Amino acid sequence: MSGQASSDTDIREGEVAAQLPPAFDASVYFIGRIRTPFATRADCPRRGDPEGGPECRIEVDPRFADALTGLDRYDDIAVLYWMNEARRDLLLQNPKHDGRLAGTFALRSPVRPNPIALSIVRMLGIDGPVLRVRGLDCVDGTPLIDIKPEFTGGRKPCDQ
Amino acid sequence: MSGQASSDTDIREGEVAAQLPPAFDASVYFIGRIRTPFATRADCPRRGDPEGGPECRIEVDPRFADALTGLDRYDDIAVLYWMNEARRDLLLQNPKHDGRLAGTFALRSPVRPNPIALSIVRMLGIDGPVLRVRGLDCVDGTPLIDIKPEFTGGRKPCDQ
Repeated sequence: MSGQASSDTDIREGEVAAQLPPAFDASVYFIGRIRTPFATRADCPRRGDPEGGPECRIEVDPRFADALTGLDRYDDIAVLYWMNEARRDLLLQNPKHDGRLAGTFALRSPVRPNPIALSIVRMLGIDGPVLRVRGLDCVDGTPLIDIKPEFTGGRKPCDQ
Repeated sequence: MSGQASSDTDIREGEVAAQLPPAFDASVYFIGRIRTPFATRADCPRRGDPEGGPECRIEVDPRFADALTGLDRYDDIAVLYWMNEARRDLLLQNPKHDGRLAGTFALRSPVRPNPIALSIVRMLGIDGPVLRVRGLDCVDGTPLIDIKPEFTGGRKPCDQ
């Protein structure tokens, strides 16, 4: 168990929950694990820092190691991971505990119908099935679901 | 059925498939549908264009409409969707049909263990549970799985 459970399963003042659909529509494989220095949610930074954050490791299941071929040509990669301890039914959330509500899709909160997180991280190196990266902000042991070269939306990454 | 099946289920020269894990690890809800002018994969542009592409609609399941509250404050949003007709087991792909192989995680191909696509799109407006956006490149009817405000990796979107 990570530290996600206690903060992401309670409901706060003013928050509104949906009736979730009666069945799931598709399924995912966990294709690896993310290793960070953050043992609990409370230890995680609010946002990953690809410049100054700590080095982290993405341990890809060895069965998928060949799928990393050519990824070393990219400076930045998009990492999708599964925030597997959050509740999934909130529509309106009170993220700052101050009574101000925001819609789930206007937040990057782990609490969402499909708890998939997206981080853009800086690639430091690849050693077999393990990527060394900078810029992650998730709990150690978080399940990995995808890696993509980063050039979202048809635009080049910012030059900063 | 979209036009994805024929091109994304065949295997091409040199391509290498993995043995997928014996079971799935988590499941997703389809939370809406994406409406585009692209009836088949062959009609889709290679990359969405947030500046000059056609206007598209993201139809969110009305049960989640309240979760869009506040999203109108953002110019750009990240859209995650499910490419539900692609095979999931290829490690090395021959995307240009020229014999040059690339790893699945070094491509944005729909063929991947978890067929989740990511597009950054320009927000044009919100009408109840429907978003009007520019910059999508997927087949009409594609299942939606998440919407997030766009400020990936702790960086502001590019100013271009």
